[in-house]
This record gives sequence, structure tokens and C-alpha cells, in this order.
Amino acid sequence: MSSERDERFMREALEQARIAYSLGEVPVGAVIVKGDEIVSCGYNRRETGRNALRHAELSAIDAACEALHGWRLWQCELYVTLEPCPMCTGAIINSRIPRVVFGAYDAKAGSCGSVVNLFDLPYNHKAEVEGGVLGDECGQLLSSFFKELRERKSKQ
Amino acid sequence: MSSERDERFMREALEQARIAYSLGEVPVGAVIVKGDEIVSCGYNRRETGRNALRHAELSAIDAACEALHGWRLWQCELYVTLEPCPMCTGAIINSRIPRVVFGAYDAKAGSCGSVVNLFDLPYNHKAEVEGGVLGDECGQLLSSFFKELRERKSKQ
Repeated sequence: MSSERDERFMREALEQARIAYSLGEVPVGAVIVKGDEIVSCGYNRRETGRNALRHAELSAIDAACEALHGWRLWQCELYVTLEPCPMCTGAIINSRIPRVVFGAYDAKAGSCGSVVNLFDLPYNHKAEVEGGVLGDECGQLLSSFFKELRERKSKQ
Repeated sequence: MSSERDERFMREALEQARIAYSLGEVPVGAVIVKGDEIVSCGYNRRETGRNALRHAELSAIDAACEALHGWRLWQCELYVTLEPCPMCTGAIINSRIPRVVFGAYDAKAGSCGSVVNLFDLPYNHKAEVEGGVLGDECGQLLSSFFKELRERKSKQ
């Protein structure tokens, strides 16, 4: 059962995901929290940014390093609406984020438990992971997006 | 046995690694090649950039997406002096790079065979990997850097 605090920050990540949705991007959003404050946020903009690195988590980690003037985010938590992919899970390892909270599970690319849990491998950092926080809401946003996309494509 | 072509581009990656060295950064360098042309390059600048994402490979992929105006680098090869970490291997998956050539193996974080080979897992992209190209030279540059670092620290 997820805490009120976790749900509160996941709702902020969902707001970010909705920005992505409005731009025609796969709706994934993230926020990075230190104590009770949001340090940075990010949303997926791979298509509009024409860049494979523009995942929500990477944008949020990038901005958090800027905001906190360093590469170690060891006092931070990452909230993200979709289970991180290998790139983003690797970025969590590299930035030493100690806790990750995600919404929907990703059977195709999720690397915090679904395809693999990279934190189980002998890298030099492990994060605590909480999955499924507002998972239905996060998943439904993705489902609506892909449903709309299919409908638009079938009309073309 | 590595080809002359692979060694030629690895020497370019080594030049990038030497820039990192001169800045006091762990000397890792990368270049991205399309056909016979270098599209982009990058070197590690995690400390001077104060950012966990500033690995050589991520900088090179970022710049290649910019240069080629898109997130799919499916006609490119990545040359990097050290085996990519999970973040950078994930970025290779996300950018659909079909071939990766690296120099030294990384027993601690290497994710193209050492700790794990992420391309063996059921993600939606696999790259062909060639490891150990100019591996001694790439590894010696790293060894010299860490030796100097230890000597400087022991004098403090």
C-alpha cells in the first residue's frame, strides 16, 4: 500500500506526463524530490526533441544535477509514472539516487523488475524501488494515448 | 583481430579520452561514425560538468541526434574507449545504434558483456558488439590516470 506522500508526488509526475500527452509524446512524467521539495521535473519529449535521450527521468536528473550543483543526488527520490528503461535505471545508478517510486509497470523495457532488476546486479549502487504507486492512473494515461494514436492512424 | 578501420576510429575516441584526462576527468572518449564520417564525439566530464549524465557516450549520442535531426541512429556505429555502463548501453538501445566497438573491458560497470550483456535481454533492440579494440592502449590511459590520482592524493 502506497503512502499519501508517495501519491502526492506521483500526482506531480502525472502532471508532467500530461504535458507530454498534450505535445503528442508518449505520456511519461517524472519529478525529483529532496525532503519535501520538488527539485526538478521532466517529461518525455523524444519525438519533439528528436533525441533518444529525452526521457522524463533523464531530463529530471539533468535538471536536478544543475539545481544541486553536483552529480550525486544521494538525498533525492525519483518519482516517475512508468517503470524506468535500462538507460534511465543506469542514470539512477550513476547519480546515486537512493529511492525510486514508479507508477505503471513496463513489461517491454522496465529495468527495475520487469525485464530485469538492474539493482540486483553487482553495480556500485542500489536503489530501493516502490512500483505500482497510482499504477492504474499512470497506465490509463498511456492506454488512452496509444488508443488515440491508433484511431488517428486508422483514419489516415 | 580488429580491423584497421575499427582501430582508426578508436584512435579518434582515444583523442577524446585524452581531452578528458587533461581536464582531470576519468579518461573515456567516444565517437559516432556514419559510413566513413565522424558525426559526433564526446568525452567524460562528470566532474567538471557536475552531472551524472556527462559520460562520453551520452554526449556523443546527444550530439549525433542533433546533427542528424532524429532519435534513430540506425546507420551509425559507436566507438568508445571503455565498455559502456548500463546507462550508456541503454542509450545505445534507445537510439537504435546497430554496432558498438569498445576498447577496455570494465569489470565493475560494463554492460556489454562484463557485469551483464544488456543486448542478451529481451529489449526491442540489439547491437553487435566488438570489445578489446586497442584495449591495451585504452586501459593504459585509465591506469595512468588513476595512478597519478593516487600519487597526488598521497602527497596531500
